[in-house]
Amino acid sequence: MFSEEHKSAGVTYPLGFTAAGVRAGIKKNGNLDVAVIYSENEAAVAGVFTKNQVAAAPIRVSKIVVNTGTAHAIVANAGCANACTGEQGLRDAENMCKIAAKELNCKDDDVIVASTGVIGVNLPMDKMEAGIKAAVKELSREGSVNAGNAIITTDTYSKCCATEITIGDKEVKFGAIAKGSGMIQPNMATMLCFITTDADIEQKLLQEALSEITEVTFNMISVDGDMSTNDMVTVMANGAAGNKKIANKDDDYQKFYDTLKDICTELAKRIASDGEGATKFLTIHVHGAETFADAKQVGMSVAKSPLVKTAFFGEDPNWGRVICAVGYSGVKISPEKTVIKFGDVTVYAHSVGASFDNSALRKVMSEHDILIDIDLGEGESEATIYSCDLSYGYVKINGEYTT
Amino acid sequence: MFSEEHKSAGVTYPLGFTAAGVRAGIKKNGNLDVAVIYSENEAAVAGVFTKNQVAAAPIRVSKIVVNTGTAHAIVANAGCANACTGEQGLRDAENMCKIAAKELNCKDDDVIVASTGVIGVNLPMDKMEAGIKAAVKELSREGSVNAGNAIITTDTYSKCCATEITIGDKEVKFGAIAKGSGMIQPNMATMLCFITTDADIEQKLLQEALSEITEVTFNMISVDGDMSTNDMVTVMANGAAGNKKIANKDDDYQKFYDTLKDICTELAKRIASDGEGATKFLTIHVHGAETFADAKQVGMSVAKSPLVKTAFFGEDPNWGRVICAVGYSGVKISPEKTVIKFGDVTVYAHSVGASFDNSALRKVMSEHDILIDIDLGEGESEATIYSCDLSYGYVKINGEYTT
Repeated sequence: MFSEEHKSAGVTYPLGFTAAGVRAGIKKNGNLDVAVIYSENEAAVAGVFTKNQVAAAPIRVSKIVVNTGTAHAIVANAGCANACTGEQGLRDAENMCKIAAKELNCKDDDVIVASTGVIGVNLPMDKMEAGIKAAVKELSREGSVNAGNAIITTDTYSKCCATEITIGDKEVKFGAIAKGSGMIQPNMATMLCFITTDADIEQKLLQEALSEITEVTFNMISVDGDMSTNDMVTVMANGAAGNKKIANKDDDYQKFYDTLKDICTELAKRIASDGEGATKFLTIHVHGAETFADAKQVGMSVAKSPLVKTAFFGEDPNWGRVICAVGYSGVKISPEKTVIKFGDVTVYAHSVGASFDNSALRKVMSEHDILIDIDLGEGESEATIYSCDLSYGYVKINGEYTT
Repeated sequence: MFSEEHKSAGVTYPLGFTAAGVRAGIKKNGNLDVAVIYSENEAAVAGVFTKNQVAAAPIRVSKIVVNTGTAHAIVANAGCANACTGEQGLRDAENMCKIAAKELNCKDDDVIVASTGVIGVNLPMDKMEAGIKAAVKELSREGSVNAGNAIITTDTYSKCCATEITIGDKEVKFGAIAKGSGMIQPNMATMLCFITTDADIEQKLLQEALSEITEVTFNMISVDGDMSTNDMVTVMANGAAGNKKIANKDDDYQKFYDTLKDICTELAKRIASDGEGATKFLTIHVHGAETFADAKQVGMSVAKSPLVKTAFFGEDPNWGRVICAVGYSGVKISPEKTVIKFGDVTVYAHSVGASFDNSALRKVMSEHDILIDIDLGEGESEATIYSCDLSYGYVKINGEYTT
């Protein structure tokens, strides 16, 4: 559903959206660093935000905007997180809204702001102001690629996708850009993701859908267990498709919901796969749990274990580390009921190591995408977590980040 | 208190204890791998064990031994954890007791067993039997160094210490050996530590003291957040010092308690400092918390953060990652009340970065031992966690462990 031709369209694939990304000099490397996404119509808006108590200034400002239920624009920058910046940071985030609102001729509280980058540094507001003004001038229907590149930090590529569905006799389009590579451990959103759609939908339903979907998509990934101060997911629905407004949980809502979920799942997987220094993409499927929460807790325990992550980096089928992480997850498990597979090779069953075909297991370990399947044998609930390995690259990237 | 001359004495420093370590061929590298520690008198014994639900066979067997309240000997091996080995593993652990008991002429349930190494592999019992027999033959008052080296795995050195106090008119001695380097995140014990003393003390008081002390020493260290399947701490008190038996919580008990705590603190610090691949020893002191549990949870959140750990490896004073980990710890904190220092340099105070002397901070970051001081400004409780950085070395050691 996410074809190559759609990709470059991103957030400007739905009708009525324009975007731009410019170089404002906030990133040290001189890359694109200020993005603006704009909807001509006032759009219904929904958002989910980091649960970190040291939430950054833009998180605090954007929550207020999302609470109004509508928005016209998003202004985002990379290179500086505007986190732990106190009153000055709050004023700077508010000024980002004001500058953009003036240029776009909309209200201050119609502008969502987002920042990502180094914590504890104030935004260079002169550069920011020039950047926002330049970006607004460059807004276009082709601007999503630049906007996507302007929000990435240590990502190796910009994550974006686009798709469409039919509601009634109308084509309804969706687009999204996302970033995230380190400090990834969601308990809400854990990265930046901006989704656009030209669907017409009640704001309350939009928020409900996004909140539910985030729980089972973005909140199911872990790169390093570090929950960021700055993360948010927003969706803007501007109604430009002209569909009959989605106002209750009918078939149209379900179609909309499924598509939004597909987009979030796809982007969550790409973020985990592009984790800092990652060489492997790990899908941890926990089933046979008594509850979803149990399944998630067991899966996260495995996903966060440095010993598991380094073993997969080394292509070492060290399943003892996986059952060890299951055992200390805090969820009550029965070793004698538990079965663990790597790919389709059973490595642990009912308290002991399984006798497996070494060459088959070696082949599984050599792949880029590896499934860790954990059956707890206790109940009917399941959860799927997306993660990555822990490599020299992660240490290098994060041992040298600010210096 | 832990002088160099005492070190080599280790577990044989107290009267009435002998020890040995031999090469049984269980470690691939051919190093010492089977240790026996023996008390001539039947000793009062206390133990704490891993809370991992996938507890290894020796844990299950040794719990039964400790529950009898007395023991004569400890048999321990490195190179194979005898974990996830099912019924066969349990029989093997029991046979370790039987073989040693026969050689030592004591009861099977007077022998504590411990194993550390790769999970999911059965013990080579022919080698084990020969090893135990050889070790018993070699038991001596000088055997602690070999015993200490026989229980280490990825440790770069064997941790041991010894000391003495006076109770009444009697000199009472203590000795200990410990191992632990990776899979270190205690929620009970998280490594192997065998403590000996010739004190005469009621077994119930001994267990109470050890359980309390473990909570604030071994349970306060984290290398990688992985809680092992095999960890245990035991203390054997054989009464050979001839002191008036410690039978209630009087001054003698307090003196005994303080010394046991000093030993456990010292060994816990050495284990954290010798964490796999560690280049830095981090002491995380959290104070101003409402409860000890809160202080510990905040400190552990910082200690386990891969972003914090890699920053210290890179000598990068990236305090944003520390306050970020404080913020997602799950403990309610007030950013505006929180103050963070690295060494004696304040880096974050009351919601914002502090203005600090860069060269002073650079000096702190360049040291091997670094204090991270976190004042939450909420209450009177505190906790101190010991940890280390995350380096290329950790990834190398654990990417290549079994292969």
